[in-house]
Amino acid sequence: MSICSLACIQCAYPGSITSSVEHHIRLIRAAANEGAQVIVLQELFQQPYVGARVDEAHFSDASAVDGALIQQMSALSKELAIWLVVPFFEQAGPGVYYNAAVVLDDQGERVLHYRKNHIPEDPGFHEKYYFAPGDLGYPVVDTPWGKLGVLICWDQWFPEAARVLALQGAQLVVYPTAIGSLETESKTEMAAFHDAWQTIQRSHAIANGVFVAAVNRVGVESGTTFWGHSFVAGPFGEILAEAGEKEEILHATLDLSEVETVRKTWPFFRDRRIDTYAPLLKRWTQ
Amino acid sequence: MSICSLACIQCAYPGSITSSVEHHIRLIRAAANEGAQVIVLQELFQQPYVGARVDEAHFSDASAVDGALIQQMSALSKELAIWLVVPFFEQAGPGVYYNAAVVLDDQGERVLHYRKNHIPEDPGFHEKYYFAPGDLGYPVVDTPWGKLGVLICWDQWFPEAARVLALQGAQLVVYPTAIGSLETESKTEMAAFHDAWQTIQRSHAIANGVFVAAVNRVGVESGTTFWGHSFVAGPFGEILAEAGEKEEILHATLDLSEVETVRKTWPFFRDRRIDTYAPLLKRWTQ
Repeated sequence: MSICSLACIQCAYPGSITSSVEHHIRLIRAAANEGAQVIVLQELFQQPYVGARVDEAHFSDASAVDGALIQQMSALSKELAIWLVVPFFEQAGPGVYYNAAVVLDDQGERVLHYRKNHIPEDPGFHEKYYFAPGDLGYPVVDTPWGKLGVLICWDQWFPEAARVLALQGAQLVVYPTAIGSLETESKTEMAAFHDAWQTIQRSHAIANGVFVAAVNRVGVESGTTFWGHSFVAGPFGEILAEAGEKEEILHATLDLSEVETVRKTWPFFRDRRIDTYAPLLKRWTQ
Repeated sequence: MSICSLACIQCAYPGSITSSVEHHIRLIRAAANEGAQVIVLQELFQQPYVGARVDEAHFSDASAVDGALIQQMSALSKELAIWLVVPFFEQAGPGVYYNAAVVLDDQGERVLHYRKNHIPEDPGFHEKYYFAPGDLGYPVVDTPWGKLGVLICWDQWFPEAARVLALQGAQLVVYPTAIGSLETESKTEMAAFHDAWQTIQRSHAIANGVFVAAVNRVGVESGTTFWGHSFVAGPFGEILAEAGEKEEILHATLDLSEVETVRKTWPFFRDRRIDTYAPLLKRWTQ
C-alpha cells in the first residue's frame, strides 16, 4: 500500500487568527471530502507571516505543542481519519519559541514534532527575532504509505537538510512555506526568485530520489505578496501538480514505491563518497 | 579584475585519439582567437567515452599526469596564454587509473589536479571497471578572476561535492561530462534525463551562489547518443549560455564578483546548521 492521496492547502491570511483557523478547518474538510489522505498546511498556518515585521505582539499568539490549537487539529484529524501536517508558532517555555510543525495521524496522535533548523533574517523575513534554531534534528515518521519528513521554508535552500531526511528513510519531504515578493522587487526579480525556489526543491527530489511537496501561502501581508505556486514533484524532479497564485487545494496522487524504482536507475546512494565529506561540518574551510 | 571570458568546447569523438587531439587543438586555438581566457574541455577529452563498454584495450591509451599528452596541452596553454581545463584518463601506476583533470595556467603550469570522486557503474557507463575513486579531495585554484574548482560528470548529481568546493572558496565550478541516451531509452526519458541533469547543476549554482559550467560531448559512440547542451549558469541558477546538440564553442562572460553580491541577498552560508549535519558522513542511518 504505497499509493497515497496528498493535498496541499494554499490560502491567504483572512485578518484574524480565529477566522484563519476556521477557514483552514473548512478547507481541510473539503480536501478530505475530495479524497485526501495526507493534508499539508502552510508555514505558521493560523497566523499572518510574522517575519514580515519585528513586532513583540506576535509572541502572544504562540501555542504549546500540547495546547488548545494542536488539540483542536488533532480532534479534526481523528474525526476525518486523515494525516495532517500542522506548521505553527510554538512556545516551548517562557521566552522560548520555535517555528515548528507536528504530524497528526488518522487517530489524532502526534507522531512527529519538528522545529525549523535554518532560520532566516532578511528584509521582510525577520525570523531570527522570533525563533530559536530547531533542536529536534530531522525526524521522519512511518505512515501507511511510506516514510514522511517535514522541513520548513528556509530549510528548502539547504541540500544538507533534504539529504539527512533521505538518509533517515524519508520518501516524501514536505516544505510548508511563506515566500513572496517585497514591494521593492521587480517582476523580473520575482520571476527569478520563483524559478530558483522551484528549482532548488526539485533538485532535492532528484538528488535524493524522493517526492517533494511545497506549500506556500498567497495574498498580500505588510507589503509582501506571497506567490503561492505550491507544487508536488516526483522522485526525479518532475512536476506532478502545481497551484496558481490564488487560494487552492492542490491534490496529487503519489506512489511512494517509485522511490526505490528511481533509485535503481539513478543509484546515487551507492556512490556517495562519505570518506570525503568532512568539510560539510565546517562553516568555511579557509 | 573579476570579469572572465569562458569557453566550453563541445565536440564528437572523430574516431582516433590522434585526430581527436588535433581536432581539440584546432578548436582551442579558435576559442582563444575568439577571446576566451579560460577554456574547458569535455570529460576524457582525447578518447572515446570508454565507459560505454568494458574493454581492456582502453587502458593502453591512458596518460601520466606529467606525460606527453599533458605536456602538449601545457605548451599550447602557454603559447596561447590561456587557462585550460583538461580532463583525461590518468595512469598513476601499474594498474592504477583515474578519471582525472588538470588545470593549466597561462604559463603552461599545472596548478590543479583532480581525480573524479564519484564513479558510476551502470548500463553504458562502466566506469568502476576503469577508474579507482578519486583521492585528491576537492581542490580549488586561484585564477586572476577568482577561485576555480573542477568536478567531473557523475559528481554533478551529488550536492555534497559542489558544497565542499564552495566551502573551499570556489566561485566557478566546471563539470566536464559525457552523458547521453542509450538506444533503449525513449525520447520522453531522454528529455526527462536532460531536464534533471540541467536542474541539478543549476541547483548547485543556487545553493552555493557560484557560477557553474557543464561541458558535454556530442555524437554517437557504441550506441550512446551524447546530447551536448553544454551550458553556463550564473550564481542564482540563471542560464547564461547554452549549446545545442552539435559541435560548438560555447562562450560566456562571467563576472565572478557577482558571487558575493548574490550571497548578500541569499545568505545561505550564514545559516548552515553545521551542528546538525553529522548524518551526512554516513552511508545510511537506519
